[in-house]
Amino acid sequence: MCGIFGISGHNEAARLAYLGLYALQHRGEESCGIVTCEKTRMRSHQGMGLVGDVFKEATLKTLTGNIAIGHVRYSTTGSSVEKNIQPFLVRHQSCSMAIAHNGNLTNTLGLRDLLEGKGSILQTSMDSELIVHLLAKSRRKDRKERVVDALAQLEGAYSLVMLMDDVLVAARDPFGFRPLCLGRINGSYVVASETCALDLIQAKYVRDIEPGEIVFISGKKLESIKPFPERRHAFCIFEYIYFSRPDSNIFGKNVYQTRKRLGRCLAKEAPVKGDFVMAIPDSGSYAATGFAEESGLPLETGMIRNHYVGRTFIQPSQLIRDFRVRIKLNPILDVIRGKKIGVVEDSIVRGTTSKARIKTIRDSGAKEIHLRISCPPLRFPCFYGIDFPTKKELIASRRSVAWIREYMELDSLDYLSLSGMLKSMLLPECEFCTACFNGKYPTPVSRKHGKDMLEKK
Amino acid sequence: MCGIFGISGHNEAARLAYLGLYALQHRGEESCGIVTCEKTRMRSHQGMGLVGDVFKEATLKTLTGNIAIGHVRYSTTGSSVEKNIQPFLVRHQSCSMAIAHNGNLTNTLGLRDLLEGKGSILQTSMDSELIVHLLAKSRRKDRKERVVDALAQLEGAYSLVMLMDDVLVAARDPFGFRPLCLGRINGSYVVASETCALDLIQAKYVRDIEPGEIVFISGKKLESIKPFPERRHAFCIFEYIYFSRPDSNIFGKNVYQTRKRLGRCLAKEAPVKGDFVMAIPDSGSYAATGFAEESGLPLETGMIRNHYVGRTFIQPSQLIRDFRVRIKLNPILDVIRGKKIGVVEDSIVRGTTSKARIKTIRDSGAKEIHLRISCPPLRFPCFYGIDFPTKKELIASRRSVAWIREYMELDSLDYLSLSGMLKSMLLPECEFCTACFNGKYPTPVSRKHGKDMLEKK
Amino acid sequence: MCGIFGISGHNEAARLAYLGLYALQHRGEESCGIVTCEKTRMRSHQGMGLVGDVFKEATLKTLTGNIAIGHVRYSTTGSSVEKNIQPFLVRHQSCSMAIAHNGNLTNTLGLRDLLEGKGSILQTSMDSELIVHLLAKSRRKDRKERVVDALAQLEGAYSLVMLMDDVLVAARDPFGFRPLCLGRINGSYVVASETCALDLIQAKYVRDIEPGEIVFISGKKLESIKPFPERRHAFCIFEYIYFSRPDSNIFGKNVYQTRKRLGRCLAKEAPVKGDFVMAIPDSGSYAATGFAEESGLPLETGMIRNHYVGRTFIQPSQLIRDFRVRIKLNPILDVIRGKKIGVVEDSIVRGTTSKARIKTIRDSGAKEIHLRISCPPLRFPCFYGIDFPTKKELIASRRSVAWIREYMELDSLDYLSLSGMLKSMLLPECEFCTACFNGKYPTPVSRKHGKDMLEKK
Amino acid sequence: MCGIFGISGHNEAARLAYLGLYALQHRGEESCGIVTCEKTRMRSHQGMGLVGDVFKEATLKTLTGNIAIGHVRYSTTGSSVEKNIQPFLVRHQSCSMAIAHNGNLTNTLGLRDLLEGKGSILQTSMDSELIVHLLAKSRRKDRKERVVDALAQLEGAYSLVMLMDDVLVAARDPFGFRPLCLGRINGSYVVASETCALDLIQAKYVRDIEPGEIVFISGKKLESIKPFPERRHAFCIFEYIYFSRPDSNIFGKNVYQTRKRLGRCLAKEAPVKGDFVMAIPDSGSYAATGFAEESGLPLETGMIRNHYVGRTFIQPSQLIRDFRVRIKLNPILDVIRGKKIGVVEDSIVRGTTSKARIKTIRDSGAKEIHLRISCPPLRFPCFYGIDFPTKKELIASRRSVAWIREYMELDSLDYLSLSGMLKSMLLPECEFCTACFNGKYPTPVSRKHGKDMLEKK
Repeated sequence: MCGIFGISGHNEAARLAYLGLYALQHRGEESCGIVTCEKTRMRSHQGMGLVGDVFKEATLKTLTGNIAIGHVRYSTTGSSVEKNIQPFLVRHQSCSMAIAHNGNLTNTLGLRDLLEGKGSILQTSMDSELIVHLLAKSRRKDRKERVVDALAQLEGAYSLVMLMDDVLVAARDPFGFRPLCLGRINGSYVVASETCALDLIQAKYVRDIEPGEIVFISGKKLESIKPFPERRHAFCIFEYIYFSRPDSNIFGKNVYQTRKRLGRCLAKEAPVKGDFVMAIPDSGSYAATGFAEESGLPLETGMIRNHYVGRTFIQPSQLIRDFRVRIKLNPILDVIRGKKIGVVEDSIVRGTTSKARIKTIRDSGAKEIHLRISCPPLRFPCFYGIDFPTKKELIASRRSVAWIREYMELDSLDYLSLSGMLKSMLLPECEFCTACFNGKYPTPVSRKHGKDMLEKK
Repeated sequence: MCGIFGISGHNEAARLAYLGLYALQHRGEESCGIVTCEKTRMRSHQGMGLVGDVFKEATLKTLTGNIAIGHVRYSTTGSSVEKNIQPFLVRHQSCSMAIAHNGNLTNTLGLRDLLEGKGSILQTSMDSELIVHLLAKSRRKDRKERVVDALAQLEGAYSLVMLMDDVLVAARDPFGFRPLCLGRINGSYVVASETCALDLIQAKYVRDIEPGEIVFISGKKLESIKPFPERRHAFCIFEYIYFSRPDSNIFGKNVYQTRKRLGRCLAKEAPVKGDFVMAIPDSGSYAATGFAEESGLPLETGMIRNHYVGRTFIQPSQLIRDFRVRIKLNPILDVIRGKKIGVVEDSIVRGTTSKARIKTIRDSGAKEIHLRISCPPLRFPCFYGIDFPTKKELIASRRSVAWIREYMELDSLDYLSLSGMLKSMLLPECEFCTACFNGKYPTPVSRKHGKDMLEKK
Repeated sequence: MCGIFGISGHNEAARLAYLGLYALQHRGEESCGIVTCEKTRMRSHQGMGLVGDVFKEATLKTLTGNIAIGHVRYSTTGSSVEKNIQPFLVRHQSCSMAIAHNGNLTNTLGLRDLLEGKGSILQTSMDSELIVHLLAKSRRKDRKERVVDALAQLEGAYSLVMLMDDVLVAARDPFGFRPLCLGRINGSYVVASETCALDLIQAKYVRDIEPGEIVFISGKKLESIKPFPERRHAFCIFEYIYFSRPDSNIFGKNVYQTRKRLGRCLAKEAPVKGDFVMAIPDSGSYAATGFAEESGLPLETGMIRNHYVGRTFIQPSQLIRDFRVRIKLNPILDVIRGKKIGVVEDSIVRGTTSKARIKTIRDSGAKEIHLRISCPPLRFPCFYGIDFPTKKELIASRRSVAWIREYMELDSLDYLSLSGMLKSMLLPECEFCTACFNGKYPTPVSRKHGKDMLEKK
Repeated sequence: MCGIFGISGHNEAARLAYLGLYALQHRGEESCGIVTCEKTRMRSHQGMGLVGDVFKEATLKTLTGNIAIGHVRYSTTGSSVEKNIQPFLVRHQSCSMAIAHNGNLTNTLGLRDLLEGKGSILQTSMDSELIVHLLAKSRRKDRKERVVDALAQLEGAYSLVMLMDDVLVAARDPFGFRPLCLGRINGSYVVASETCALDLIQAKYVRDIEPGEIVFISGKKLESIKPFPERRHAFCIFEYIYFSRPDSNIFGKNVYQTRKRLGRCLAKEAPVKGDFVMAIPDSGSYAATGFAEESGLPLETGMIRNHYVGRTFIQPSQLIRDFRVRIKLNPILDVIRGKKIGVVEDSIVRGTTSKARIKTIRDSGAKEIHLRISCPPLRFPCFYGIDFPTKKELIASRRSVAWIREYMELDSLDYLSLSGMLKSMLLPECEFCTACFNGKYPTPVSRKHGKDMLEKK
């Protein structure tokens, strides 16, 4: 997963991009980068690690210019090496281009073959580089036509920002898999993956970049085109369940309130008889609040998160993960001992982390544990940018709920139903991609690509 | 403030010390260090920064030996430079000594003069170095007598762990200002500032090291002495209010539950008529839970904390602080807009941070804001280890509650009463130091020292 | 200027490449890199700085495989940034290619336009990247044909080594501007810019790679082709004067002995009446030895070089240079005071460094100073890889010898004659490029390129 | 071995100290440091590595004040760790003191016992720390008396510079083992280990600090005292043979010219019949020049030194040394092949390095090799600061010249005689310490210390 940010026509472009990325850090902790443009000269700074570590005051000062794009990255496509840090920046025929991208293309293998067959040399394994090469190969002279020409060849998910000299381009694929919003600050336009980035820089939210839309922002002027045929929408529902920040509004709804609704719906579908409700912090906290409210049970803090460690989900190395599960959450024994507890979590991926946490609660003396999950079982891999493990590793793809309940030694286990989840969205069901739950992929997935993804790692 | 840890008679001493410090990280983010002893050879690793950054697998492997002490530090005494990192380690007359210390001595100036007058050379501005020099100057031959001899000259607050060759010494001043607990793992003894460090390494809590007690642990054998006259106790009540981790038990009670009781008591003393209760996260969260339960109002999440930034309170540089206030908390507009809100915070120190947060809530469209603080006004500096600003900077030392209410543009402001706070402790009132609230210092404070502290920085 | 090295069929390929680069360090101090290939997987390590700093034992261990190429670089073309470090490495159509290059192409501007016009994206300003793109664009299927196809489009100077998967390719342009030699160790072939690299790894010198020759080395088997029309030779005579190491044999002759012959010839052409002869160390040392022998004057050490500072000529930044002139050489006052001295230097470029050194000798009390230069006046820029300053900055391009003598406040100044220099070579005159002395460029230089070079910096 | 530098009353004190250390770098490559004083506030910067790497422009700017001392270090006493970097700096009873020291004390063990017995805590294993503790322990109130009091307790070799607040103190032990000279620049006094440091900063040499002299320099005023009884002198003759820079004058004579005299004397004592004379560069170069002149044989360059590697002698780790011998010198085959050669070297320590070099010359095809050493056999360890290996490792302490000749496979081997060496000095014989050659130590060496040193490592 990744987060992207762009701003045009602001004399503190780099600084605002920095703040924007800070707010989007949860979308990718592996690396980050900012590119600015002053006249036709691009300046770039990138590095492995967190925004707060990679950028220093002195660095920001070197990033001059009124226009900037930025990126935070967690590797979905492309291995985690320095040259895969985005934005991807090139100079071609006296035009400078930089691109930052969120989402996964599904026809990369075909595009690579095509380009290399014509003698192009690809330096990285990033989707963004492919897009740049398509732009360079286009025979159109006009900038807009070149962009349309290149994007028309892409399949899959992309929300992207580009600098083409001093023009900021933002685009979202016709399905609208990944969020991308438009804001305004002092008359300057901003685009960002989530509204929390607008909030931090105190920009006003204007609207979402629409599925299939391309905007060209030059200084403080914006032009929008929608050159592609309309497609059904396929908003990633997992952005609500887990990925986006609770204070963001995405696809038009607030994430925190959506999670509370998921929790309320879950409490109705699968109530718990117990002494209190607790969350697996922080991921399950908001659904737990809804669950507690709906059920009338008190909400207790049964585990404390150690704030000095990052998000398990987002760490690339398996080796580190086990240590972090152990160090991350500490139960409060005086709260748990001897109690019947409803435990709320947002989702179960591999099952190993959840099992370890449940065991911790059990070891702290809980009398009964009733686990409630605020989405349906995850059964299928995502080809559009969420870094799920392969199908084999998704516990619910191979095991029944009953099996998982026993594996985790639970007194009861219930997932939210697909219909319950969709109902909680307050948007038409057909707007969403639910492929990870039911395997209905909204785009054709090339067999090779699919196979590759299903068996990857 | 600081956190300390010690372990004896365990073949993974360094690794457990590392984990212990990880759990105590909230007590000091500036620097950390571990010293181990193998036979009579000490090994040490220290550095500026967080435990997770300073120590790597390779480093831990060099820290051989069955006995270890560790320290995390936020500078109270001594400036924030590398040579002030603890444990403080010396070799003297073929004996190796290392010491790690939590708390502030109140007679350091006198001790320095005394030692330098006798030709001792002090390399740092740390209390721990003074203690080591007192040990070196002692004419007693017996280890225990030397320790008693040295500690007898100290005034003020100290919880400390020492290595003297392969013997682990732990001690707590007769007033018991700072917590220090004793645990056991696989037959080996562990001492730590808080029980959360025992939990992480899955050690069993045995008891607190008592005020005035000194324990000598050699291998797996423990000997305890209490050589000093009994004094009244003076447990730091601010450890409950703010400093300790909610999952720890200190002075015999769980911190989280104590905070909930503070919140409940606050709701009784100063109820709010509003749409819901929210906390300033994370500091006010637990009192807010108690407040909401007692008041019957719903508990909402009105602000989201960005987990990529550390604890404001604990950052040394004022320059960074303002930026961090801004970047740390984001309001959820859809929750706050148009609502009457009870906001719960644990304490107000300078008032600037709280003011900024209240302003953020106001700017998000709150209709009424009723701020409730789960302790009384902080009016006096701490000479025993809490790094409050000088008296001048403590807003409540110079201003009335009414003035503060207006300054923060609140609809109402209430603090918990002193008696309410003490009642919530479920321990006799006389056990606590409440000097920061009422100026009743349990020990004489030398005028120079006091003056120095009152005007420091 | 640059130094290159390649080895095939040796199980310590990376380590030998490392040693080879160490021996070639004088050819480029700015950056260095090594690429190895194991089966079809390339491994690379590169960095700014000296070989001894960039490579560590641990790094060498990661560079597995039986084949390696390496490069040390001082920027002639391409600015001094990290991405310009060679070898340049790409993967294209499941073939890995890496290239390291010494010399300057003279048709880079044309090649860039051509490639970008066809949609190629160039990431660096290095000649080596152009060569790789020409290889990728070639429609030939056969590896040899592709190489010939690509090299046929190059104009100017190149000595290069390439890895194409597990085949080592070495080539030298038809004029043979830059040296490139072939050696053998334990049956494995080695190629290197100078024989000193063979000596260090105790490889036997076999022969030079000939002008216009391309060799393909697969394992321990070598195939040679000479696909291009024969051209006159144009060996860089400045390699003898200054650039190569004295212990190397290049173009078939030993450099140290050649320099001594230059000194002897100079003593005949322009004898000195004085008390002794001294060199400007180390550059003038060998010519000074010849000069002293021929003239019968004693050879004294009048200045001591501080070995802790690098070579002035090769430092990119003017700012540093002045400091280094001052710190690099210290006169021995007891030797110089009151004496008539013949001072021998290898060449004068800008004149500022020489002037500073002469001043130092004068300030030390020399009675007479007779400067002798072991080559003719440098009047023209080099387009083939020697990083002379622009024509304007070459002092002899604008000033007469008489003017320079006065400018440096010398008692006499003489340069070796062109014919004297050529005679000292013991090779036919027509084998050499002497363009920097007489402006006779052996290849056409495109006006734009020439203009660019003449005015560069 | 170490190098020291001090300057008082100059507004670029730190910068001049930096340059002075740069010139003294050959006396110690392991670490370096500078301390300045502005009013009573000392500022310090230190680091492992070379002066040019440890100090940057920005660092120098922080070292404010008109007075400075500096140190370059190669560990003789004290292991090579960061805390042993000099100058050693403390604050004691509101006086700041910093000290930098060259030489070895012979009564450190006694002094340590004494100080620790009185409760002093020693943090390092450096002689300089001992001196500081003696100063702190002194009961005298007057600065001068304190210094005399402390130095009176020292035995062995010391040349030292100290800052005591804003007074620069320089002292040399009564035997005068190590050099220390006094210079002047713009009216300000400078002290340095060798005159080459004065030359670089263009200071005028005034005189040597005399054996047993202490000077106190306050601003631009100097006061000298000689409080100790006169002793015989014991100038280190090995400073001339090997250690000092050839452009320095020490003990009143130029080092280069002294080395030439040693070579001339050697040629008379042990002439060679051969084709030419060559040096082992650079150590043997100056003696070789004298040897060639006296013998009438031509002087050839038979080996080239790679300037990218440091001085073998001065590297702490044995592991690195072997690699460096190999990489450091390359023979010129065309010069050596088939020739009868006189090879001149300054000294033989362990014999391993010399053996390796002779082997290289032999392998290059030399017909006869006649090795000549410009000092007598080294048979005894140095207790005064030269870091010879233990007696056991000194090849000449256990083996005859005939044995060594065979071991190195030489056609002949001759050392300069003791009387020849002393005659070449042009100073009375009794001025020198020749203990490393004949075991006559000028001071009593405590048995324990001696034993320790003889078996050390």
